[in-house]
Amino acid sequence: MSKSILEIQPVGGVGQIGSNMTRFIGENTNIIVDAGILFPSEDFFDINYLIPDLSELAQDPPTDLVITHGHEDHIGAIIHVIDRFPDITIHAPRFAALLIRKKLDYAKMSKKIFEYQSESILEFRDFNIYPIHVNHSIPDTFGLLIKDKKNRQCTLMVSDFKVDSQSPYEREFDFKKLINLSKDCLTRIILADSTNIISTNLNTPSEGMILPNFKKIFKEDYDNIYLTCFSSNVHRVMSVIEAAKESGRRVLLYGRSMISYAQSAVERGLMIDSDFYTDQASLPNKKKLVVLLSGCQGDFRGTFRRVAKGEDTHFKPTAKDLFVLSSKSIPGNEKKISLLENEITEKGIDIISARDELIHVSGHPGRNDLLTVYNHFQPDYIVPIHGESLFIKKHIEFIKKEFPKAHPIQLSNFDQLSISSKLEVTLKECSPLQPILIHGKGIEIERENISRRRKLATTGSIFISIKTDSLLKRKVQFEYSFDGLPNSFNSNREDFNTLLSNELVGRKIKLLEKTADEIRIAVRRYAQNLLGYKPITIVHFV
Amino acid sequence: MSKSILEIQPVGGVGQIGSNMTRFIGENTNIIVDAGILFPSEDFFDINYLIPDLSELAQDPPTDLVITHGHEDHIGAIIHVIDRFPDITIHAPRFAALLIRKKLDYAKMSKKIFEYQSESILEFRDFNIYPIHVNHSIPDTFGLLIKDKKNRQCTLMVSDFKVDSQSPYEREFDFKKLINLSKDCLTRIILADSTNIISTNLNTPSEGMILPNFKKIFKEDYDNIYLTCFSSNVHRVMSVIEAAKESGRRVLLYGRSMISYAQSAVERGLMIDSDFYTDQASLPNKKKLVVLLSGCQGDFRGTFRRVAKGEDTHFKPTAKDLFVLSSKSIPGNEKKISLLENEITEKGIDIISARDELIHVSGHPGRNDLLTVYNHFQPDYIVPIHGESLFIKKHIEFIKKEFPKAHPIQLSNFDQLSISSKLEVTLKECSPLQPILIHGKGIEIERENISRRRKLATTGSIFISIKTDSLLKRKVQFEYSFDGLPNSFNSNREDFNTLLSNELVGRKIKLLEKTADEIRIAVRRYAQNLLGYKPITIVHFV
Repeated sequence: MSKSILEIQPVGGVGQIGSNMTRFIGENTNIIVDAGILFPSEDFFDINYLIPDLSELAQDPPTDLVITHGHEDHIGAIIHVIDRFPDITIHAPRFAALLIRKKLDYAKMSKKIFEYQSESILEFRDFNIYPIHVNHSIPDTFGLLIKDKKNRQCTLMVSDFKVDSQSPYEREFDFKKLINLSKDCLTRIILADSTNIISTNLNTPSEGMILPNFKKIFKEDYDNIYLTCFSSNVHRVMSVIEAAKESGRRVLLYGRSMISYAQSAVERGLMIDSDFYTDQASLPNKKKLVVLLSGCQGDFRGTFRRVAKGEDTHFKPTAKDLFVLSSKSIPGNEKKISLLENEITEKGIDIISARDELIHVSGHPGRNDLLTVYNHFQPDYIVPIHGESLFIKKHIEFIKKEFPKAHPIQLSNFDQLSISSKLEVTLKECSPLQPILIHGKGIEIERENISRRRKLATTGSIFISIKTDSLLKRKVQFEYSFDGLPNSFNSNREDFNTLLSNELVGRKIKLLEKTADEIRIAVRRYAQNLLGYKPITIVHFV
Repeated sequence: MSKSILEIQPVGGVGQIGSNMTRFIGENTNIIVDAGILFPSEDFFDINYLIPDLSELAQDPPTDLVITHGHEDHIGAIIHVIDRFPDITIHAPRFAALLIRKKLDYAKMSKKIFEYQSESILEFRDFNIYPIHVNHSIPDTFGLLIKDKKNRQCTLMVSDFKVDSQSPYEREFDFKKLINLSKDCLTRIILADSTNIISTNLNTPSEGMILPNFKKIFKEDYDNIYLTCFSSNVHRVMSVIEAAKESGRRVLLYGRSMISYAQSAVERGLMIDSDFYTDQASLPNKKKLVVLLSGCQGDFRGTFRRVAKGEDTHFKPTAKDLFVLSSKSIPGNEKKISLLENEITEKGIDIISARDELIHVSGHPGRNDLLTVYNHFQPDYIVPIHGESLFIKKHIEFIKKEFPKAHPIQLSNFDQLSISSKLEVTLKECSPLQPILIHGKGIEIERENISRRRKLATTGSIFISIKTDSLLKRKVQFEYSFDGLPNSFNSNREDFNTLLSNELVGRKIKLLEKTADEIRIAVRRYAQNLLGYKPITIVHFV
């Protein structure tokens, strides 16, 4: 525990977009905010996701986890957190709580989730947390105002947000509450979203601007409209449903995550389940539909990909149909999505994307939106979070230029920011722990084993088994397999037999290890000569 | 050979950016234009590149190959073309010829390259080719005007170009020659670049606009400036050298391809080798340098990557230095480059990229530049090439809207476009052949083997060797290896021994194949249970 009145330590989410997790520690309080995953870049071969390294936390386990909203980069690691800290108490807004309960069910875990709302106060020994309603691309998103009991410091943790005064689906960022609660604080700190700091959109457009464009598009003379967006973007899905109603189209939700989020939205009272279909078999016919596809990032096992490639059993889009891409490419997915756009185009099917019409808006603040929040809150210190290192730096430069009365603080993961009882703010730099890679059924896989996988994938492999006691005979017995090698190599089995036979002549049983090594070297040299690279080669003597 | 006066068939480059190759066939003429490679998307595990499938060409081998310019997507497959068609005659502009000769030297091949220049006429039986000087991001780039001997049709093949009237390094696109040569043609066809059709830059800025910005940046108080750009962009390198001179900085070319292109530029008379260093050891000191790095796309074995990550032996950038990224991300490389930008930022080093200053311009035409060419040439038919399918389609839409007097023709790879003696233009759709994947020392690797590599990389592998005649004994002898599996799995060797021993009890030597299958299934089931996925498992009996 800390002797400061508050210590803030990001465990993830600074220097990367994802794996959001931040510790807030008082003398007798130790909690974390959010427990998110980081989506892998392409290099990690099909791993599921990354999570923050929890080993440092384990030295002084947190008692509570407070969730700001239900996006995967804020709740995706929750099962791992519960595994590690089974006694932790979890607080979440209503929509996030519904999503977390689904996760727990799926993992066959049982754990109570305490729901909080706008009016709630989360009381801890050293500070209270006041949820501040903000706008974002998923319902029930909150900033957290953390105030010590003596009202000396106010820290606003507002990782993901936008400022949307025209959303038909939710009220605006609750500036009034923020101002009221913080007006008497002596020191104000804000931790704020850097996602759009280099965006050319200074003001993030309102979610409300999309509906008229959907209405216009849905009225066009296409047969079926295949629309993809982030499944968690419930307000977007609500716009789709409303526009479809007006144009006389039925809405089918297609893809597991699309259906799952919508079901939660129905439970949350945001949608009515008679407004959409979730089973293609129950449709009266398959004409004039809006088919809402999950997997907008072109994910390899996603529904958008399957339908776009014409590989779906029930829907084979034709030139009479239309694709609508109501989302943007998350960095790293650009090529994957553009290749799908090409495949769709090659079938003669039209595409409308955010390039052509305003059919996607960000859930994060443009630079002017940040200034709006800074002007309302009047922070003394601004800590850029939720961004890659370059974004954090650009955010710092932006503060220096556009809001110079606040001190910008450049924080990295695992750095400790302390506010002393004298309200001095100090920063202790700490070496960060790398996020952990998770594959398969929630298993950690180490980076060195990923390197080995990369090696297998780039060179292929050769596996040789030799019967040890046949070394004493005239003809040595062996067996081998090639994997992932070119056909031109695979067809050279006679040469390969000769190579092995020659290598094995006169070998002694006493020196098996040396022999295995030498055979490995000879085989790899032979392959290098034919292919220009050396496959991973494993030799067994039995 | 064809009965049309001209038949045009793209073998690559339409529906993808790369692997450019187009056949031009007359009754007694059969040539190809360009022989390029396609850079792989991320899925192909370290393969070098893709080349067009030459098997259809082989049925009626081309006599000549005409190169438009020296970029790899136009000359990179030339060794494969010569391998397949050893008698082919190669024509290339001077700078491309220098680059091709280097390739031939490296491959220990000998072949005469015929150089052509602006004034040259390439004469074939059925048509002549007149090179038209165009602007681009590599010196000596030409459009090819293909005219039959009776001056009935003029086809302008102008794959890569821009219109740059203010370049300090080359004269403008030779519209005058184009107009003069084509003015009496009865039918005009243009095949034109679609690369920038969805760019928001309607007019591609001049290469000449970069120099003043380099001058300004180089005068700033940084110690060393690490600048990366495309190595083949000789004019950009010339700007770097000029700006460095003015600011009193020495220029070091760092990275094999950077040095290699510069040497060719010296040979071509474009640069003077006393203006730069190519060996860091010969520098009088390592202060106030501009270090020109190759590998601007963040390539895994590239110099930019190595230096940016602090892994270079001679140059370890510090916060006193500056990185300048004078290039753009080729689609698919965005994430790789942005991760490097983050690493640089984390070292406290400033970065200036094309986001911040005009320090990169495209080598391809904006929409207005296309219109300029169309207005000069007055084509009857426009065939969009050099673009992915979506770009080709957007280019068609653009023509319909902005240049409606021409007929747009939507061509795919391997489609045949024929101009009859009556000047009727007809299109025959053909099924395209997929490009071939090349790995290692120029060896084809089949797509099914790439799938196998993907499988190895995503699941890891298990090899098991069993001594056949030990099946008769009380204790069966076996050996096994795990590859690319998590440490938590690797540490379970006792369980694995038990699993195998139990599986092997009472097995008969007669049924080895069945036994191997059943062991494979049991092992994979065991792994699935622990990991959630099934490693590739190979079982040998010897």
